[in-house]
Amino acid sequence: MSGTASPHDNQIAPAQGKLGVMIPGMGAVATTLIAGVVAVRRGLAQPVGSLTQMDTLKMGETTVPVKEAVPLAALDDLVFTGWDIFGGNLYDAARTAQVLDPWQLESIKPFLESIEPMPAVFDQHYVKRLNGKTVKTGRNKCDLANQIRNDIAAFKQKTDRQVMIWCGSTEIFLKETDVHQTLAAFERGMVDNDPSISPSMLYAWAALKEGVPFANGAPNLTADIPALRELSQQMGAPICGKDFKTGQTLIKTVLAPALKARSLGLNGWYSTNILGNRDGEVLDDPESFKTKEESKLGVLEYILEPEKHPELYRDIFHKVRINYYPPRGDNKEGWDSIDLFGWLGYPMQLKVDFLCRDSILAAPLALDLCLFLDLAQRTPSLKHAGVQDWLSFYFKAPDVKDSGRPEHDLFLQAAKLKSTLRQILANPTAAIVEEEAEFAEA
Amino acid sequence: MSGTASPHDNQIAPAQGKLGVMIPGMGAVATTLIAGVVAVRRGLAQPVGSLTQMDTLKMGETTVPVKEAVPLAALDDLVFTGWDIFGGNLYDAARTAQVLDPWQLESIKPFLESIEPMPAVFDQHYVKRLNGKTVKTGRNKCDLANQIRNDIAAFKQKTDRQVMIWCGSTEIFLKETDVHQTLAAFERGMVDNDPSISPSMLYAWAALKEGVPFANGAPNLTADIPALRELSQQMGAPICGKDFKTGQTLIKTVLAPALKARSLGLNGWYSTNILGNRDGEVLDDPESFKTKEESKLGVLEYILEPEKHPELYRDIFHKVRINYYPPRGDNKEGWDSIDLFGWLGYPMQLKVDFLCRDSILAAPLALDLCLFLDLAQRTPSLKHAGVQDWLSFYFKAPDVKDSGRPEHDLFLQAAKLKSTLRQILANPTAAIVEEEAEFAEA
Amino acid sequence: MSGTASPHDNQIAPAQGKLGVMIPGMGAVATTLIAGVVAVRRGLAQPVGSLTQMDTLKMGETTVPVKEAVPLAALDDLVFTGWDIFGGNLYDAARTAQVLDPWQLESIKPFLESIEPMPAVFDQHYVKRLNGKTVKTGRNKCDLANQIRNDIAAFKQKTDRQVMIWCGSTEIFLKETDVHQTLAAFERGMVDNDPSISPSMLYAWAALKEGVPFANGAPNLTADIPALRELSQQMGAPICGKDFKTGQTLIKTVLAPALKARSLGLNGWYSTNILGNRDGEVLDDPESFKTKEESKLGVLEYILEPEKHPELYRDIFHKVRINYYPPRGDNKEGWDSIDLFGWLGYPMQLKVDFLCRDSILAAPLALDLCLFLDLAQRTPSLKHAGVQDWLSFYFKAPDVKDSGRPEHDLFLQAAKLKSTLRQILANPTAAIVEEEAEFAEA
Amino acid sequence: MSGTASPHDNQIAPAQGKLGVMIPGMGAVATTLIAGVVAVRRGLAQPVGSLTQMDTLKMGETTVPVKEAVPLAALDDLVFTGWDIFGGNLYDAARTAQVLDPWQLESIKPFLESIEPMPAVFDQHYVKRLNGKTVKTGRNKCDLANQIRNDIAAFKQKTDRQVMIWCGSTEIFLKETDVHQTLAAFERGMVDNDPSISPSMLYAWAALKEGVPFANGAPNLTADIPALRELSQQMGAPICGKDFKTGQTLIKTVLAPALKARSLGLNGWYSTNILGNRDGEVLDDPESFKTKEESKLGVLEYILEPEKHPELYRDIFHKVRINYYPPRGDNKEGWDSIDLFGWLGYPMQLKVDFLCRDSILAAPLALDLCLFLDLAQRTPSLKHAGVQDWLSFYFKAPDVKDSGRPEHDLFLQAAKLKSTLRQILANPTAAIVEEEAEFAEA
Repeated sequence: MSGTASPHDNQIAPAQGKLGVMIPGMGAVATTLIAGVVAVRRGLAQPVGSLTQMDTLKMGETTVPVKEAVPLAALDDLVFTGWDIFGGNLYDAARTAQVLDPWQLESIKPFLESIEPMPAVFDQHYVKRLNGKTVKTGRNKCDLANQIRNDIAAFKQKTDRQVMIWCGSTEIFLKETDVHQTLAAFERGMVDNDPSISPSMLYAWAALKEGVPFANGAPNLTADIPALRELSQQMGAPICGKDFKTGQTLIKTVLAPALKARSLGLNGWYSTNILGNRDGEVLDDPESFKTKEESKLGVLEYILEPEKHPELYRDIFHKVRINYYPPRGDNKEGWDSIDLFGWLGYPMQLKVDFLCRDSILAAPLALDLCLFLDLAQRTPSLKHAGVQDWLSFYFKAPDVKDSGRPEHDLFLQAAKLKSTLRQILANPTAAIVEEEAEFAEA
Repeated sequence: MSGTASPHDNQIAPAQGKLGVMIPGMGAVATTLIAGVVAVRRGLAQPVGSLTQMDTLKMGETTVPVKEAVPLAALDDLVFTGWDIFGGNLYDAARTAQVLDPWQLESIKPFLESIEPMPAVFDQHYVKRLNGKTVKTGRNKCDLANQIRNDIAAFKQKTDRQVMIWCGSTEIFLKETDVHQTLAAFERGMVDNDPSISPSMLYAWAALKEGVPFANGAPNLTADIPALRELSQQMGAPICGKDFKTGQTLIKTVLAPALKARSLGLNGWYSTNILGNRDGEVLDDPESFKTKEESKLGVLEYILEPEKHPELYRDIFHKVRINYYPPRGDNKEGWDSIDLFGWLGYPMQLKVDFLCRDSILAAPLALDLCLFLDLAQRTPSLKHAGVQDWLSFYFKAPDVKDSGRPEHDLFLQAAKLKSTLRQILANPTAAIVEEEAEFAEA
Repeated sequence: MSGTASPHDNQIAPAQGKLGVMIPGMGAVATTLIAGVVAVRRGLAQPVGSLTQMDTLKMGETTVPVKEAVPLAALDDLVFTGWDIFGGNLYDAARTAQVLDPWQLESIKPFLESIEPMPAVFDQHYVKRLNGKTVKTGRNKCDLANQIRNDIAAFKQKTDRQVMIWCGSTEIFLKETDVHQTLAAFERGMVDNDPSISPSMLYAWAALKEGVPFANGAPNLTADIPALRELSQQMGAPICGKDFKTGQTLIKTVLAPALKARSLGLNGWYSTNILGNRDGEVLDDPESFKTKEESKLGVLEYILEPEKHPELYRDIFHKVRINYYPPRGDNKEGWDSIDLFGWLGYPMQLKVDFLCRDSILAAPLALDLCLFLDLAQRTPSLKHAGVQDWLSFYFKAPDVKDSGRPEHDLFLQAAKLKSTLRQILANPTAAIVEEEAEFAEA
Repeated sequence: MSGTASPHDNQIAPAQGKLGVMIPGMGAVATTLIAGVVAVRRGLAQPVGSLTQMDTLKMGETTVPVKEAVPLAALDDLVFTGWDIFGGNLYDAARTAQVLDPWQLESIKPFLESIEPMPAVFDQHYVKRLNGKTVKTGRNKCDLANQIRNDIAAFKQKTDRQVMIWCGSTEIFLKETDVHQTLAAFERGMVDNDPSISPSMLYAWAALKEGVPFANGAPNLTADIPALRELSQQMGAPICGKDFKTGQTLIKTVLAPALKARSLGLNGWYSTNILGNRDGEVLDDPESFKTKEESKLGVLEYILEPEKHPELYRDIFHKVRINYYPPRGDNKEGWDSIDLFGWLGYPMQLKVDFLCRDSILAAPLALDLCLFLDLAQRTPSLKHAGVQDWLSFYFKAPDVKDSGRPEHDLFLQAAKLKSTLRQILANPTAAIVEEEAEFAEA
C-alpha cells in the first residue's frame, strides 16, 4: 500500500484507507478494545465510554456527533496487530482476561483467533512478577528496537497509516537520567544497554522513528522524556500523556475540583483499590507500584493548589493503596474515604465506592487516543507539535509541552479537547489558542 | 440612618455603612450563620465554604481574593434580625439546633442572647409538622404582609441596606396558579386570603415591596412566580433561585457531568437521605417532601440531556428519598447508589456516602447570597435585572430570566458566577454576556 | 401410588418414594429452586446455602454430613408442581425472572419447559400491583379452596408424600380477626367470602386439610392463625414461621446479638433496600409493604430486650424502607446505617452494604424447609406438634407454639435446629427439650 | 496494707479492699479507661461496653446483673498506676490521645493530674517508630525486670490485690525460640540479654513472679510462651489471651460464623483499616504490622474450618491492611469487602464500614479483664489454672491451655464466659466443664 497520509497543504488530510493499530501488550485492555470494535462494527453493542463515538460537538448553533464533525478514521477501517509475551491468539487471551462474557466472545471467536501477537521485547528486570514466553532476543537494546521497527515496516505494507498504544504492564519506577535528555544520548544508550532504557521506551522509539504516533496507557516513564519528545517533533509523530484515567482517579479529579469550587477544606484522602487481574499482580511488586503511586498522588496537589489556598489544603494527608485481590478478576473496586471540613472547621466525611471494570473503562480511551493521534498527525498545526496537551482528558499523568502545568481537572480537560477540535476544524494550520485558560483558573 | 445605597451613575455603589440581614426562620441554618460570622469576626474560626471569604478571582494576570477584588460588605458590617415561631433568643435556638459545639456557643453567648426573633407569620396548613408559638395575627394575608413591611421599615432605621433570606421550613407543594401570574392578581389574592399564597410569599412580597433583595434557602414556591419577578424588577430588588445546594445534590451535580463527559451511560440513580433536624421532621410530611422531591429530581435530566444522548440516558430510573431519623440530628447522611454502564454496555456501580452537616454546608451559602444580592443591588446592570442567573451556583433549583434553561452543572455555575463578577468590575453598566455558553454545551 | 408415609411405631418413617413439592407462586424463587435442584442432580452446580445439603452435624464424637445423619428425602426424589397467575412454562418464567444466567437455563431447558403451573387462586384486592392471567374462578372462597384440594389430590397420585411452600407475592396487611380464631369460624368464613381470608390462607387450608405440611416464604398472615394451627395439629401436617430470612434481616439478626453481647448501646438503625424484581414491585404498594415492615421491624426488639437493658436499647429509632428500583432486577441491595455508642456514651457508626441476590438466598431455604417439614411429618414426636419452633432459623417471623417468645438470634436458631435433629435421631417419640434455653438467655 | 486475698478453703475469696491496676503503656487506652472509671464513679457517664458493669447473668429462673451475681471488685475500689516512656501526668496524656472531649477531661482534671506514670522499660529495637523519654536503665534485662518487681512491691503497700494489663504499643514480630520454652531458660535469657525477650515479656515475668495476674491488650508475643505459662500456674497468677478484639475483627468474628451457619461460601475477604493514633503510627512499621497481621489473619480459618467444608471455604483470599492516617486520630475506620457465593455458586458482595473509636472500644475490655483476672485469682478452681480459656471473648488471639483449639466465634466465647461464671458460683473448686462444646461444633 501507499505511504502514510500527510497534510499536503493547509487542510486536515482525509482519513482514507486503513488505520493500523499496533499494541505492545495484548492482554485485558487490548482484547477488550479489539473484541469491542468488532462487536460494534457488527451492530452487536455500543461503544459506550468513547467520546469519539458517542459524544457531540457544538459547532456554532448546531450540535453534531463528534464522529461526523471531525474527520476521524472509521471503526471499519481499523486493523489491529501487536506484541505479547504470552503467545497464543487473541481469543485465548480474551478468555484468560475474563473481562467479556464467554458467550459474547464466542460470537466473534474466528476474528479473535485470527490475530496472533508477535514475540515481544521483554526484560523481567522491569516487570518482576511476569515471565515472558514469546520474547525477542538480540545483541543489545538497539538491536531489539530495530526488530520492532522491522515489525512496523512489515505492518505498513498492509495499512495506510499507523498508531501505537502501549497496553503492557506497568514497569518499575525509573527516574530521568542523562541518557533520556537527548535523542543522541538515548540512541547511544540503546547500544550500551543502559539500564535506564526500558522495553516500553524501545517500542516508543521504534514507533516514532518510523513516524508512528505513540500513546502510553500505563504509568511507566516511556515517551515522556526529552529524547523522545525531540524525536516526536522531528518525525511529525505526535505523542501524549500516560496512564489511562479510569476508575478511582477519574472520580478524584471530579470531586476535588468540586470541593475546591465550594471552598471546602480537606484534611485527608485515603484511596484503596482491590483488583485481581494481571495489572493487580504486577502492581503487587513494590517497584511497579511506586511507578503507579507517583502517577496517582500528583493529582490532588495540582488541582487544589495548596499554595494559593493554604487554610484549606495545606495539610492534606493523601494515601493511595493498590491491593492484588484475585477474587475480583478484572472488576476493580476503588474505595475512597475523604475527610473534609466546612464552616468554622467542622469535619465531614465523604466515602466513594466504585465497583468498576478496569478494561471496560480503559478500552474506549484507547480507541479515542488511536483516532485522535491519527487525526493529529493529519493536521498541519498538530503534526509536528510533539506532545498533544489537548489529550490530557485521557490520562492520570498528562504530558505538557514546554514544561507547563498539566491540567488534571476533568472538566477543564474536556473543554480543552473540544475547543481544540473546533479550532483545527476552523483553521487547521493556526496555533492552538488556550481560550479556556481564564476559566481554568477562575 | 440614611436611605439605601443606590448606584448614582455608572459605578458600583460602595458598600458603606451597615448591611442588615433579615431572616424568616431562625433555626439551625440562621443560628449557625450568625454564630459563625461572629466567631470569624473575633478570629476564632474560618469562614470555610464561603466563596466570598475564601476563594480567589483571576483578574488578568493576577489572582486576588474575591473579597478584595469585589466591593462586598465586610463581615464587620453585618447586622442580623429575623422572625421565628418558637420564640426565645438565638442562644437558646442554637442550643436546640445542636449544630455547633456547646463550648463554642458559650464563648459568644452574650451576642446570641441579644438577638430575639420577632413573631412570625405562620400557618400550619403550609407546614403540617410544626406548631407556632410566637405568631402574628391579622385580618388577612395582606394585613400580615404589611406587618412584615413594618418590621422591615423599623429595621431600616438601624441599618443602611438590607437583604432578606428565607431560612424557614419547607412548605407544602404548591402549583403556580392564576394568582401568581401578575402582581395585581397577587395583591388581590392577599386580600382574598387565596390559599395559593403561602407565608413565605408574604415575606418575599414585603421585602421586594420595601426594595429589599430576597433569597430562598428552601424549595417552596416563593419568589419564583411571575408576580414577584415583576415586583423585583420594578423595585430594583434582586432575587435568585431556591433551595441551597448542599449535600447530596451538590455531589450529584458533580458526578453526573463527569459521567456525561466520559460518555458513560446510566441505568439508575437511587438517593436516600437520613437526617434528624427540624428540616427532616418537616420533610417527613408527604406534602412538604413533594416540594423537596421536585427540586431534587429535576437535576439529572437537565445535566444529562437524554434527548441528545438517548442510548446513554434515556432509561434512567431516578429515585430520591428523605427519611426523618432523629439519632443523627443536624448531621445529614446522604447515600447514593448509581448504576452505570460502559463499553459494550457492561454494568458498573458507584456508591457515595456523604456524612455531612446540613447547616454547616448551608450557612456559608446564605452568607454569600446576602453579600452578592447586596452587591447586585448596588450594580447598575444588575439592580433591575430581577432574577440573578449568575447565582445558580448556590441552588438546587436555580431560577432563570425569560424562561431560559437553568444551569445545574456545578462547574459551569462557578464559571458563570466568576465571569459575571469580572464583567461588572470591568463595566458595571453593560449587560452580562454569557461568554461561557459555548463551553457549557461543549 | 400408595398413601403418605406415616410413622407406624416409634421410628422416623423412612424417606421412601417421591416427595412432591407444591408451590403456589412459581416466579423467581420457585424457578431458581427447581432449576437449581436439577442442576445439582446433574452435577453441574453445588447447592450452596442449603444446610441440609452442605452442612454437618456433630454426633457424639464424630461429625457427619446432615444429609447422611438424617433420613431426608434425596434430591433425586423431588417432584415439583405448583400454581401461577402468569401462565407459561417454567423455562419462560425463569427467563422472565432473570436470576440465573441464560446459558445455564439453556442446559436444562427441556426439564423446565415440561413443568407448567396450574391456574391459581388470586384476588387483586390482596396484591394490588399484579394482574392475574391464569386464575381460577369459583362460587366462593370455599369453592376455590376445594379446587386446590382437587389439584393436591391429583398430585398425590404421582407422588408418595407432599409438602407445600408459598412462594407467591406478599399480600396486603391483614389483622387477626374472629374468623381466624377457630377452624369452624374459618371454614364458615370461606363460604361467606370473609375479606379477612386471603388466597394464601386458602392454599394453606387446602394443604393442611389434605394432610400436607405447609410453609410460607412471604410475610403475609397465612398459616400463623389459630384456626390453621388447630388444623395442622389435627391433621398431623406440620407448619412453621413465615418470610424467608435472606438479606438484610439475616445480617441484622447477626449484628444485633453481637452488639448486645458486647454491651454496646444503640441509638438508631436505618435500613433501606432497593430491588427490582416482582417482589419489589409488589412491595411498592403501601399495603403490601406494611405486611413486610411488620415482619422486619419486630426483629430488633426481640433480640435486644430493651426492657432488660434500658440504658442501652430503650431509645432505638428503627426504620426500614424498601424501594422498587428496576435497574437492579433480582439483585437486591440492602444498606444499613447503624448508630451505636460505647464507653461513656461516645457515638460510633457501622454501615453495611449487602449486594445480594434475593432468590439465590431464598431458594436453598425453600429446599431445606421442604425436606425438614417432610421429615417432621415422618417423626412421631413432631408430626402432631403443629408449629415447628425449631425451624425459626429460616424465618424473619418465626412462629411459636403456645404464644412463646420467638427466637430471632441466628446462632441460637441454628443451635436449636441441630439440637432438635439430634434429639429426634436419638429418641423419635420423646418431646423436644429446649436444652439450649439457658444459653439463649445467657 | 495486708497481703493479697487468697482463697482459704473452697470459697471464692471476697473482693475486699483495694484492687491495684498496673498498666505498662499509659496512652490512649489507659487514660480512657481511667478517666472513664472516674466519670462512672461520679455518676457522669455509663460504663457502656463493659460486660461486668452492664450485662446480666441468667441464674436459674432469674436474671441478675453480672456485678451483683459475681463477687467482683467494685469500681470504687480500683487504684491505678503504671509505666510510660513519655513522662507527664495522665491529664496531659489524655489530652494528647484526643479520645475524650476536652470539657469532659476538664471535669476530672485534678484526679488525672495526680497520676504520673513511672519510667518504663523500653527498647527501640522492639518498637521502631517510638522514642522513649522516661526510660529505665539497667545492667541487663534481668536487672530491668527486677526494677519492675520493685515497683510492684511498692504498689503492694498501697493496695490489697493487683493485676497488670499491657496497654503499650505493638512490638515487632517475634517467633518462639528455645529461650521461651522453660522458665529456667527464660530467666537465664534475661541475664544474657537474649534478643527474643522483649520488654513486654519482662513486665509479664515481673508481674507473675510477684503473683500478679497479667493480661495483654496488644498482639505481641508476651505471656503466651511456655515459660510464662509455667510461671503463671506455679504462682497462681492467671493469664489469658492477647490483642483486644475491638473493631474490625469483632465484626469479622460475627459475620463469618453467620455465613457458615447459612452454608454460604467465601471467595475473598479484604479488610483495610485507617487510624491515626500512636497505634497506627507504630503499626506503620512493617515489623510491628507483621505481629498484628498474624493475630488478625488467623481468625477466619479457625471459624470457617475449610478442612471440613472445602467446597465453601477452601480458596478464600484473605487480606488485612492497616494504614496510618493521621486525620482520623483515635477514630479508627475499618472497611471490609467480602466476596461470598450462594446457591449454584452465584457471587454476592457484602461491605462493612465501621467508623469506630479504638480506645472507646478497648477501655471496657481492659476493665472487664482486670476484674475477671482478679476474680480468677480468688477462685480455687481457676487460681492455678494458668491460661483462662473462658476469657477468649476479649481477644483477637485467645490463648488456650494444653494446645487446644482457640475459640474465635464471639457467641460461643460469650456462652463459655457466662457458663464459667455460673459454674464457679455453683462450685468454686470443681474443674470447669466445657458444656457448650457440643453446641460449639454443632
